[in-house]
Amino acid sequence: MTPVALDKAFRLLNHGPTVLVSARHGGVSNVMAAAWVCVLDYAPPRLTVVLDKSAKTRELVEQGGGMVIQVPNAAQVELTQYLGSHSWHDAPGKLAQAGAELFEVDGVDQPFVAGCSAWLACELIPEAHNQQTYDLFIANITAAWADARVFHHGRWHFETADPALRSLHHVSGGHYYAIGEALERQPD
Amino acid sequence: MTPVALDKAFRLLNHGPTVLVSARHGGVSNVMAAAWVCVLDYAPPRLTVVLDKSAKTRELVEQGGGMVIQVPNAAQVELTQYLGSHSWHDAPGKLAQAGAELFEVDGVDQPFVAGCSAWLACELIPEAHNQQTYDLFIANITAAWADARVFHHGRWHFETADPALRSLHHVSGGHYYAIGEALERQPD
Repeated sequence: MTPVALDKAFRLLNHGPTVLVSARHGGVSNVMAAAWVCVLDYAPPRLTVVLDKSAKTRELVEQGGGMVIQVPNAAQVELTQYLGSHSWHDAPGKLAQAGAELFEVDGVDQPFVAGCSAWLACELIPEAHNQQTYDLFIANITAAWADARVFHHGRWHFETADPALRSLHHVSGGHYYAIGEALERQPD
Repeated sequence: MTPVALDKAFRLLNHGPTVLVSARHGGVSNVMAAAWVCVLDYAPPRLTVVLDKSAKTRELVEQGGGMVIQVPNAAQVELTQYLGSHSWHDAPGKLAQAGAELFEVDGVDQPFVAGCSAWLACELIPEAHNQQTYDLFIANITAAWADARVFHHGRWHFETADPALRSLHHVSGGHYYAIGEALERQPD
């Protein structure tokens, strides 16, 4: 887990991976899967994420004002599917049941999910209209890290890393695609 | 090019592809590439897309109130890179120079880009604060179509289609990934 410069943090999400959203407030931690996450800006680094009103994690983000967006990988497809298809409201023990391992990072009062390929610490920009009308949340990216085996020198290197580190791209239900081969086009 | 049911249209974007955004107003058509596009809802079907203030296509969307979001494929990496790295303001002939072929669809007064794997006709939901502050545009998806060789029965089938039809996922500059292999996890 090595730091990613903030001006390159957007590249962790630029190719459209499905993510895990983690948050903690009042002693409760939760993690959900989300396919509807997107870069909003690279300077300042910002992202959008859609959090449904039924999600416990949404409550924690609204109450605590922060979250961690992490990029899970092919080795975590079972974990991702479990976290995305079980609600804390029905199963408050879902993290343990999913086998999710959380860890702490100095300076960020939010839970991080172990084993992912990248992590983005985020602070909510409160936008009540977007949140209420569209379930749309806007956040500043305040710090980022990646697994240097698969992201280094400011970009992903899926083509040379262990295939187990490839990002997940959700289709529906239990169906995902892993990111695939590199296609290069030299700029004109 | 076969119609996609509106309740399945979000699946065209759920896996995070880079897209082409096309729009027309006052007799001017333009197309840009955009990696920052995301599903916002499936009922009603909605999406978000980030359109920079420097983009001619943004002007056309703001003026005309509509756009088409299309999913280009591996056979179109050169086209996508060209459209994403040249501005109409500097090169008003960019569509011809890129070799982009536009076509019309009955009932939608917007230009469609030939050769893509999917098309989503969109109508802007005006949100001045989001557009001015964040360059963030919200739109209703009003109709959708896909190339039935790669999207049928409500989902992508990249794993069995011609690899040239795989979606593109932008990294930076001229670097893209194609979508890769299918990973299946049965829901619990």
